[in-house]
Amino acid sequence: MTSDPTLDDRVPSRTQVAIVGAGPAGLTLGHLLHLQGIGSVILERSSREHVEQRLRAGIIEQPSVDLLVSAGLGDRLLRAGMVHSGFYLRYDDSTHYLDFHPHTGQHATVYGQHELVKDLIAARIGTRRPLLFDTEVTAISPTGPTASVRYRTAAGEHTLEADFVVGADGFHGAGRAAIPAEVRGELIREYPVAWLGILAESTPAAPEGMYCPHPNGLSVHSMRGPKLSRQYLQVPAGTELGDWSDEQIWDELSLRCSAADAAPLETGPIIERSLAPLRSYVSSTMQYDRLFLAGDAAHIVPPTGAKGLNLAISDTCVLSHALGAALNHGSTEHLERYTATALPRVMAAQRFSALLTTTLHALPGDGFTEALRRATLDRWVGSQAAQHELGEVYLGLPFATAPTFGSPIGAGAPA
Amino acid sequence: MTSDPTLDDRVPSRTQVAIVGAGPAGLTLGHLLHLQGIGSVILERSSREHVEQRLRAGIIEQPSVDLLVSAGLGDRLLRAGMVHSGFYLRYDDSTHYLDFHPHTGQHATVYGQHELVKDLIAARIGTRRPLLFDTEVTAISPTGPTASVRYRTAAGEHTLEADFVVGADGFHGAGRAAIPAEVRGELIREYPVAWLGILAESTPAAPEGMYCPHPNGLSVHSMRGPKLSRQYLQVPAGTELGDWSDEQIWDELSLRCSAADAAPLETGPIIERSLAPLRSYVSSTMQYDRLFLAGDAAHIVPPTGAKGLNLAISDTCVLSHALGAALNHGSTEHLERYTATALPRVMAAQRFSALLTTTLHALPGDGFTEALRRATLDRWVGSQAAQHELGEVYLGLPFATAPTFGSPIGAGAPA
Repeated sequence: MTSDPTLDDRVPSRTQVAIVGAGPAGLTLGHLLHLQGIGSVILERSSREHVEQRLRAGIIEQPSVDLLVSAGLGDRLLRAGMVHSGFYLRYDDSTHYLDFHPHTGQHATVYGQHELVKDLIAARIGTRRPLLFDTEVTAISPTGPTASVRYRTAAGEHTLEADFVVGADGFHGAGRAAIPAEVRGELIREYPVAWLGILAESTPAAPEGMYCPHPNGLSVHSMRGPKLSRQYLQVPAGTELGDWSDEQIWDELSLRCSAADAAPLETGPIIERSLAPLRSYVSSTMQYDRLFLAGDAAHIVPPTGAKGLNLAISDTCVLSHALGAALNHGSTEHLERYTATALPRVMAAQRFSALLTTTLHALPGDGFTEALRRATLDRWVGSQAAQHELGEVYLGLPFATAPTFGSPIGAGAPA
Repeated sequence: MTSDPTLDDRVPSRTQVAIVGAGPAGLTLGHLLHLQGIGSVILERSSREHVEQRLRAGIIEQPSVDLLVSAGLGDRLLRAGMVHSGFYLRYDDSTHYLDFHPHTGQHATVYGQHELVKDLIAARIGTRRPLLFDTEVTAISPTGPTASVRYRTAAGEHTLEADFVVGADGFHGAGRAAIPAEVRGELIREYPVAWLGILAESTPAAPEGMYCPHPNGLSVHSMRGPKLSRQYLQVPAGTELGDWSDEQIWDELSLRCSAADAAPLETGPIIERSLAPLRSYVSSTMQYDRLFLAGDAAHIVPPTGAKGLNLAISDTCVLSHALGAALNHGSTEHLERYTATALPRVMAAQRFSALLTTTLHALPGDGFTEALRRATLDRWVGSQAAQHELGEVYLGLPFATAPTFGSPIGAGAPA
């Protein structure tokens, strides 16, 4: 193990933890390590502008909020986030509100992922630890007495030596690719549908998020502000953005969310559009020697359960604790158990996401499967026990490892 | 509508309600009608000995127990039944008890279906209303100003006229067949597995029922008495009883339920064997003019959730109320709503049965589906909220229509 050397900000060559990717996972991890006095270098392929504008999820679980706040990363989140207690379900001409707060005592916070990323970048810059944008990692060597990362900047190719490397660079990143395929033990499910998403200047359809299962397919209506809505249409896999005009999108959203007990959907200018496939992916191994995967690099959930961002944060919670124990106390047992510690919560979220996905979407299937899907919706609406079960996962299962800030491990003063 | 005429016990020709089938559905319905002063004739193809010995389910939900007791049919059930609060789940070398009673305040009663059938037959005989064994129904005409049933006894062919006919004669019976296929709106799912069941003189593996999901397939261990066990092995569909020797059955049961925290399975003489396919079936229409379906004639659940007998009883609860309203008060609106009233509870049970079936069995599927199955087991074991949700259905959802005995409808004195 090495202590954190003084680094050249532009071409660092040595650090304790090399973090690939400046999304929520990489940035949060960097900060949690910083709080333990552990040095890191974060390498991000895209520009700062790109990652700060990239529209993603917006529902943050209570345990994620708690972690961010306890790490000093939650000021703007607490000020600007909207507190929600559940979601709406509208089908068969009726609207139902599933209120999870009474069952769990918890809330979800609606706060755009790109807003959180802005906060995390600002915090990182405040620590003066290296964060390099427009920097592509070309190779990771995780084995041997030290790990190394090859990366390319405008100034050329460089090598970063590190005690450990964290792949927080998503499904297509260098981190995942550096684990031999036969070691990863990958499990994949592709759904034959995608989400066509819009951000629009219109009053949201409901005071909290709303799912509208409809014979034509699911529509999802969420809010980003009083006059800012984020809405999604289930479309066939392979759909392209150009296939849909603004008018067609509004017509279909309006149709799917129409109900006798609700006002017609308000339309407005569409500011942004996106298209996301629906798939589930798990790497059964989140570690390979000195390399650890976090967030989307290790697992993808379909967007239905809003779990992607939250899994990224729970991974970094476990990993920061384990890296702290290894680098500050020479105890590597937590690192060796990283997969075993993190994976059960990942699979619980996968189960939940798959349940929501198969229940809410119109998917190919026989009449019996369709009738079961309807019976599941009716059960969710009709049973408080079912709402408690759903809400416990929706609002956030506890993290496997409690944050350690303020504890002896976290007491090492930031450099 | 007609009042109940005096009937020739052997060749009745006129009644208010013709009931086809002397299983739990037909016999319970006959009694619930009797309590309202409504006459019925029950026609059963098999012999009395056969139906009284036929080994079937053995878990009676709390609402079913309550109905039977309130109808005066529960004396022996309450004396001899064993009260259970949940079930055991054993996998990965560990045993877990899911105790549903604290969540629901309810219990299940373990009491063999054939014992209940004996009680119901004795009660029927006590009412001196007609119950004909060895009587095959050959045709049902449910339309017109009156319904008619053609049936064959040792004495020859006869016709029974009735205001209404109830098909409580199972999936292969004349009742279901009398509804045109295009009207029934059938939904079917066949699982590629079956249950090989044994009744054995051996100490049950656990104090209550136990499911053991295992890579080889599910084993189920339930009790019928302190030294009497009812156990099942998941086997491939198409298996024949002769494919398995007693020794092979015990070896496989022992293997699947072995665990570090448990004593080896006790073996003993096998008294009886059975083989049951696993399938789900729903008739979306439970009525056709003057004909009504109840129990297995209208829906089949896989045995995993132990819901078949209980659905039969809940159907008869709804139907007896509706027939009472029609025959005693001339109000047919409940009869017309029979399907709409009964079907949601049927579908809730179907959902539950399918969930248990797909979670507990080793079924063909990809690695991701298998990992989700494991995550679901872990969720059931690890979350009190999940146990509440499961237990609420396992111990019995409320019946759609409250029993009416003692109420004005039931006050019509039995004939």
